[in-house]
Amino acid sequence: MPLPDVASSADALDALRARTPLVQSLTNIVSANFLTNVLLAAGATNAVIDNPHEADGFARIADAVLINLGTPNDGQAEAFTLAARAAGEAGTPWVLDPVGVGGLPWRTDLAAGLLEHRPTAIRGNASEITATAGLGGDGRGVDSGGADAADSVKAAVALLEVSEAVSASGPTDYITGRTADGDVATVRVHGGSALLPKVTATGCSLGALSAAYLAVAPDALTGLVAAHIHFAVAAEVAEKVSHGPGTFVPAFLDALAAVDPDAIRAQGRVTPGAA
Amino acid sequence: MPLPDVASSADALDALRARTPLVQSLTNIVSANFLTNVLLAAGATNAVIDNPHEADGFARIADAVLINLGTPNDGQAEAFTLAARAAGEAGTPWVLDPVGVGGLPWRTDLAAGLLEHRPTAIRGNASEITATAGLGGDGRGVDSGGADAADSVKAAVALLEVSEAVSASGPTDYITGRTADGDVATVRVHGGSALLPKVTATGCSLGALSAAYLAVAPDALTGLVAAHIHFAVAAEVAEKVSHGPGTFVPAFLDALAAVDPDAIRAQGRVTPGAA
Amino acid sequence: MPLPDVASSADALDALRARTPLVQSLTNIVSANFLTNVLLAAGATNAVIDNPHEADGFARIADAVLINLGTPNDGQAEAFTLAARAAGEAGTPWVLDPVGVGGLPWRTDLAAGLLEHRPTAIRGNASEITATAGLGGDGRGVDSGGADAADSVKAAVALLEVSEAVSASGPTDYITGRTADGDVATVRVHGGSALLPKVTATGCSLGALSAAYLAVAPDALTGLVAAHIHFAVAAEVAEKVSHGPGTFVPAFLDALAAVDPDAIRAQGRVTPGAA
Repeated sequence: MPLPDVASSADALDALRARTPLVQSLTNIVSANFLTNVLLAAGATNAVIDNPHEADGFARIADAVLINLGTPNDGQAEAFTLAARAAGEAGTPWVLDPVGVGGLPWRTDLAAGLLEHRPTAIRGNASEITATAGLGGDGRGVDSGGADAADSVKAAVALLEVSEAVSASGPTDYITGRTADGDVATVRVHGGSALLPKVTATGCSLGALSAAYLAVAPDALTGLVAAHIHFAVAAEVAEKVSHGPGTFVPAFLDALAAVDPDAIRAQGRVTPGAA
Repeated sequence: MPLPDVASSADALDALRARTPLVQSLTNIVSANFLTNVLLAAGATNAVIDNPHEADGFARIADAVLINLGTPNDGQAEAFTLAARAAGEAGTPWVLDPVGVGGLPWRTDLAAGLLEHRPTAIRGNASEITATAGLGGDGRGVDSGGADAADSVKAAVALLEVSEAVSASGPTDYITGRTADGDVATVRVHGGSALLPKVTATGCSLGALSAAYLAVAPDALTGLVAAHIHFAVAAEVAEKVSHGPGTFVPAFLDALAAVDPDAIRAQGRVTPGAA
Repeated sequence: MPLPDVASSADALDALRARTPLVQSLTNIVSANFLTNVLLAAGATNAVIDNPHEADGFARIADAVLINLGTPNDGQAEAFTLAARAAGEAGTPWVLDPVGVGGLPWRTDLAAGLLEHRPTAIRGNASEITATAGLGGDGRGVDSGGADAADSVKAAVALLEVSEAVSASGPTDYITGRTADGDVATVRVHGGSALLPKVTATGCSLGALSAAYLAVAPDALTGLVAAHIHFAVAAEVAEKVSHGPGTFVPAFLDALAAVDPDAIRAQGRVTPGAA
């Protein structure tokens, strides 16, 4: 089976624009506005339904769910579990973004509980992915101290016991999952911008965009790769018209909207990675 | 009695800038920042006082109150009722923005309870207005499934049993209320921008701006029309200097600040609507 | 001892960029995103850890803590005390931003409790500083009604009983503290932009930036002055390329990143103030 590439990513963007999937986001107070604007610009929609009274029901009708552990209060933490369980029961694809897992004990426990509901995909930075793998995965106790990309790929492979695809995003994104014929594969997405880590909630927004793509892609690995390529190409376009991290924000949202399947095919850069 | 028009809206903007009303907002994590910047740019101020310990007292001294059902936690939900009751007792005008009412059961119950406190005005999209009318209003059970503008005008008229003016905003805004001599009338505000729905919290911000105008306008219908014209004219100005949904945001805030009564008179477009 | 000036502020900026301090922010839903982007642009990082399960532990490992009383829920209010106590025990410098203290009873009580944990610095507008001094300080009951700059300096001096440095920010910032040899001194920082009060959360962001500088400056007075000069110079730079409050936001973030120690020395304006 061919690995996901710019062609499959361009097709996924076509599908995103055609279907405008509705994401349910349970996310933090830092990212909620920007993340929603990212989804709207890219071609999806978003509803932040994060209270325990409604999270369950909405996860059954949304096209995808994002659970981001950023700044939970107790009600949101309860809603995480309700949404994860409902998504699993209803077949709604969902993304776990394990913000801060490893370094912070309460949310690390929350993440461990959420892994039992088998997130369709997991997106974090290398150290979060490594720490998350230490919670469940293959149980061999992947060390949570490292933030090295190679370590995170081992962690991502371990997490495939509970998830279909895993992204460790950074200057180069490492995306690990199973191809349609069951092989484990890692794909690297290149590009992006050095301004991305100078703007808050870009990682959270990539998690949300990943959820949107899960709703339209043929499989989780293809969806995650498409989301990361869309993000990286838009960031490259935006950087060229930015004067710093402030002007990058509006330029990036413009670029997410302007990037089309042709731009994905022409500018996306993806290579097979070690698995 | 003449219907509210660009002349009365220009006068209301004059009053807004002269008095700088203080809005108390109980709103959601997606909109809180943008909505406050909209109020500041337009000529008002905002304080997000949404905890149950202070919501009551502040609603008695604020110039207007916004209650937006976006992403409530239990404490905020409790504060909604406290603020609505206090606003009613103190004569503070208040706006209900029934985000998601109809599709989400818990907040639909919250909205039903809040209608008992008789919001001065209600602002939502057509389907939210229709769903809200099904909760109270004339009790004839306006169907909540429709998002059609004509349906929403019927719903808005029904809601005049509990409120003074109702806006169903969209590509064209339908604003229904009573003129100074008691006649029911609907006014349509045209304009705006196709980029508005590509930016999150624009609807929430229009609800907040409506609250600010209630504090300075001679009646609720006039205030709502003035808020919607200010918003629509600013959006048209902003679209001309925007390259997409990202650059629209700063341009729109600039335009809200730059629009003056002369611009309202010259560029506002309002027509009588079916009532 | 010489007072903090542009030279010591330029040195502090050098230290900020060299060390990239990690701030833990407990802040409000209006400011969380912008404040984080301000810290990232300026040269620090931010983690919003505001739940009572993690606030204590994180305050022991963060480089500085910000406690902002903007829009607390009960869990955040509990976390404020836990973070303040832990910061004190661990020697982590922390800033109290007493948003709304004086006018709002519940948070006024919260602030009184937090003063017992001796914030390293306090930043507010003149009326908040005056009201906060009425809570603790020298116990002589500084009147909380006044928002006059001269009054706020008296209040700031009173607050030195519980804090090392106090800023009353406004068109001119008054920063009061003790020099290295123990003398009480007030320094005025000039500049900034008339657009700052037209953008929400600029004051909150200045509190966060103050926390970041406390982590790298030799003393609290020097750190506060450096934060305010960095902010004021960036605002002046941004205003020149802004067309209103909307375009000011990205320009200001760009400017916070672009301002370097040479710019601080060339453009910073600071004078001794009455103490």
